[in-house]
Amino acid sequence: MFFAFRTTLLASLLFAGAMPEYTESGAVRFPADYREWVFLSSGLGMTYGPTAQASSSPLFDSVFVNPAAWAEFKKSGKWPDGTMFILEVRRSVSEGSINRGGHFQGEIAGIEASVKDTKRFPGNGWAYFSFGGKGTVTEASPLSTKSSCYGCHSANGAVDNTFVQFYPTAMPIARAKGTFRP
Amino acid sequence: MFFAFRTTLLASLLFAGAMPEYTESGAVRFPADYREWVFLSSGLGMTYGPTAQASSSPLFDSVFVNPAAWAEFKKSGKWPDGTMFILEVRRSVSEGSINRGGHFQGEIAGIEASVKDTKRFPGNGWAYFSFGGKGTVTEASPLSTKSSCYGCHSANGAVDNTFVQFYPTAMPIARAKGTFRP
Repeated sequence: MFFAFRTTLLASLLFAGAMPEYTESGAVRFPADYREWVFLSSGLGMTYGPTAQASSSPLFDSVFVNPAAWAEFKKSGKWPDGTMFILEVRRSVSEGSINRGGHFQGEIAGIEASVKDTKRFPGNGWAYFSFGGKGTVTEASPLSTKSSCYGCHSANGAVDNTFVQFYPTAMPIARAKGTFRP
Repeated sequence: MFFAFRTTLLASLLFAGAMPEYTESGAVRFPADYREWVFLSSGLGMTYGPTAQASSSPLFDSVFVNPAAWAEFKKSGKWPDGTMFILEVRRSVSEGSINRGGHFQGEIAGIEASVKDTKRFPGNGWAYFSFGGKGTVTEASPLSTKSSCYGCHSANGAVDNTFVQFYPTAMPIARAKGTFRP
């Protein structure tokens, strides 16, 4: 009984404290438990370019953030060092089971990540990573800073490098704390 | 330092153990922290009737489950007494900020819940609740057992009364544990 209780305590602490982990070469390890992090939002068929067109099989993107970073964001409206976002991209499915319209989430098409660590990464401290779509990539080095992720997030993120304008529960916190960039 | 540490432990324990709470009259209290529960999936414009038609402003539905129930589901593929699901319905928004297509999640249109408690509720132990769409409802009594929720979930849920067929991370667990009903 005593040990079971202690194990629960430890598991809770580890869970609440999940932070990015790195290999010796500086790659970030895939966080296998990201689906138990804090969900920020889902979108369907999100496109950003001027020529983007609607697709008949659009992709879902869902965003998760590590609980320790979320706890700090709720206090200050800012993302601390150690913040990690996961962008999970899934194919959409229609007319499965009893569903007769609309779209629900199917197989994973890709997983990407961003991490903030001002001591580790140059510029404003954010780096971007891709874990592919097959679930077999266990670590990833930062994408080149020439990748479009860096410029787009830096120019368009409503809070720091993050798209809080699309996260309905994060947006009011940032507005209240004065960290929201319209 | 010591007290801060103890407070963190306590908060972690309370969080991991979130269970449905009831008023003296048997209404279930609105779980204000449900967005920090485990996310199961989002759908857009999900319709089920034979005559349902696509809408130009479809609704997003997102489903969350309390972490204690999820921990048990991962072990057994079954939902224990004390399981609580939240169905959050949000309006969809297009062409906001830098987005030029697709849909992202906007204001809440409604929040519904289901709770399993075989000692408290008749039949197979599931009851359904509506918290409305304005964020002002703090408790809700079970909907009438004549409500369509009961029959549809009971007839079509892939695991017990739940639509695990639409939850991409729950489905493989149920299949592996032999609790999935095709």
